[in-house]
Amino acid sequence: MASLTPRREASSSSEKSQTIALIGSGTIGLSFAALHLEKNPTATVTIFDTRPDLYEYITTHLPSYLLDAHTSASWQDRLTLAPTLQKAVEYADIVQEQGPEKLAFKKGVWPEIEKHARGDALFWSSTSGIPASEQNVDMKDKSRLLVVHPYNPPHIMTLLEVVPSAQTTQASINKTLKYWRSLGRTPVVIKKECTGFVANRLAFALFREASSLVAQGVVDVKDLDAIVTSSMGPRWSIAGPFKAYHAGGGEGGLEALMDKIGDTIQDVWEASAKDIEKEKINVGEEWQAMVCKQTEEEYGNIDTKERDFKTRKVLQAVQDKVK
Amino acid sequence: MASLTPRREASSSSEKSQTIALIGSGTIGLSFAALHLEKNPTATVTIFDTRPDLYEYITTHLPSYLLDAHTSASWQDRLTLAPTLQKAVEYADIVQEQGPEKLAFKKGVWPEIEKHARGDALFWSSTSGIPASEQNVDMKDKSRLLVVHPYNPPHIMTLLEVVPSAQTTQASINKTLKYWRSLGRTPVVIKKECTGFVANRLAFALFREASSLVAQGVVDVKDLDAIVTSSMGPRWSIAGPFKAYHAGGGEGGLEALMDKIGDTIQDVWEASAKDIEKEKINVGEEWQAMVCKQTEEEYGNIDTKERDFKTRKVLQAVQDKVK
Repeated sequence: MASLTPRREASSSSEKSQTIALIGSGTIGLSFAALHLEKNPTATVTIFDTRPDLYEYITTHLPSYLLDAHTSASWQDRLTLAPTLQKAVEYADIVQEQGPEKLAFKKGVWPEIEKHARGDALFWSSTSGIPASEQNVDMKDKSRLLVVHPYNPPHIMTLLEVVPSAQTTQASINKTLKYWRSLGRTPVVIKKECTGFVANRLAFALFREASSLVAQGVVDVKDLDAIVTSSMGPRWSIAGPFKAYHAGGGEGGLEALMDKIGDTIQDVWEASAKDIEKEKINVGEEWQAMVCKQTEEEYGNIDTKERDFKTRKVLQAVQDKVK
Repeated sequence: MASLTPRREASSSSEKSQTIALIGSGTIGLSFAALHLEKNPTATVTIFDTRPDLYEYITTHLPSYLLDAHTSASWQDRLTLAPTLQKAVEYADIVQEQGPEKLAFKKGVWPEIEKHARGDALFWSSTSGIPASEQNVDMKDKSRLLVVHPYNPPHIMTLLEVVPSAQTTQASINKTLKYWRSLGRTPVVIKKECTGFVANRLAFALFREASSLVAQGVVDVKDLDAIVTSSMGPRWSIAGPFKAYHAGGGEGGLEALMDKIGDTIQDVWEASAKDIEKEKINVGEEWQAMVCKQTEEEYGNIDTKERDFKTRKVLQAVQDKVK
């Protein structure tokens, strides 16, 4: 199992193995550790976390993230636990942070990391909402920090939203994209630091409409989920909304589709907006307790193992070549 | 190939084969014909359409919908083309309409069908927006008409939105659900005849947000699609939004998740609503031409064969048992 001592020497061979320092080892940290170890078979991963039981915690929980058949057998030899932040980052090519989602923490930790890290290290934050331009204010060199926001859990889901600040250099962006592509992931650059980035904005938009329809009594939670898994889910695994509607329009594409069903789309948008207002679909309003209760009654405790197994199968299916 | 003469005798054996009359043979009609013939191996399908080249049209196009390995070899013997509406419906157990999306057509055709059909036939409309309660106004018996709205193409996608009117009897709903379940499909009852039913309301909500993000220059069409296919698509193939977020909340489920990230969700909803207003994301406004142009440039003509092949693979993957 993992050594408690971080590697003290930087690798210097021409086919250099990368060293990734993970700051924070919650579920995202563990999932990223598994991802780097599995998909980057020469990488060294160093974990720093202030929890006193770190060794026991990692030995207990990390193996369950490593079920993939491609798991490199040598992962134990490539994982170290760092006793201090300084030790964690000093030889790292990449420092990846998934600490508390608090601006004060992020703002404080980067200058500390910067002080001890190499001058050419890349800095990634896994934040789901605090832009790099707010995290970097007290850093000397803001050019190497950017957000790399995963879609949970990152050891299974391939998306990584890459959100640079205005100070992030193109070189830092390019190195980030190159790293993730070499691991077979799907990094996508978000061109503006907008609230929620992109994936959550899309998913929350559908979630709001879904909650509105349940609140109105049009469908229950279970039936709404069945509708999604038997329609949009599979469709959007193969083609995103623009490509899907473009195909739906036949030879004339999306433009023809808009000509044909544009009136219906506009009617739906207007009905949806009216209903969301009427049903008060805002966080903390009445609908929320009802929807949460119905969801709990329907699903109880969920086995994420089954979800993860099936998700891997779906992702494989998408990759299959057409016969 | 298909006979031009409809079957003149109703089947009377105890294991009765069903006769389905399809009114209208556009892409939805052909797709439904393929679905009934493939998944219901004793069904007889009768097609009525006013196009003069019906025989040539069906012989040319229907085979491409029948590529599934489960295709019953006998489908040619079970398909007939009817010379008149009366001939098409007179022995039918089920009359399924996918004619023009115009209220006047639907309102007019049902009394005509009712006149010639059996007294216990089920009547299904494939409309994507005209509720049964508006279609049935001139019918004598409104109890047997309901909407069965597919997610295209129905010979591949499993969802069917079953939308009864207030006059539709529970017996008609039950027979409808039983039929589709026996074909391995996913019929879901929509409890209120709301604008757009459910699947389109959900999909259009996400499409509006997607269009807004592209209009703002946050991502381009291609990157937005890549985000969806590498995150929500696969996730929502396995679990709908409520189940997915319930799992995301860990032991506390959806309620715990809302406690944890509710503020972020509300921030995103408010930012989205503001941006949709600012960018004027309504049908026919400026964003539309830009988004259509970008989509056309990115995708050109789309090979739906590849989409359909991969969709079948994804749907199979979802069914796979956990090892």
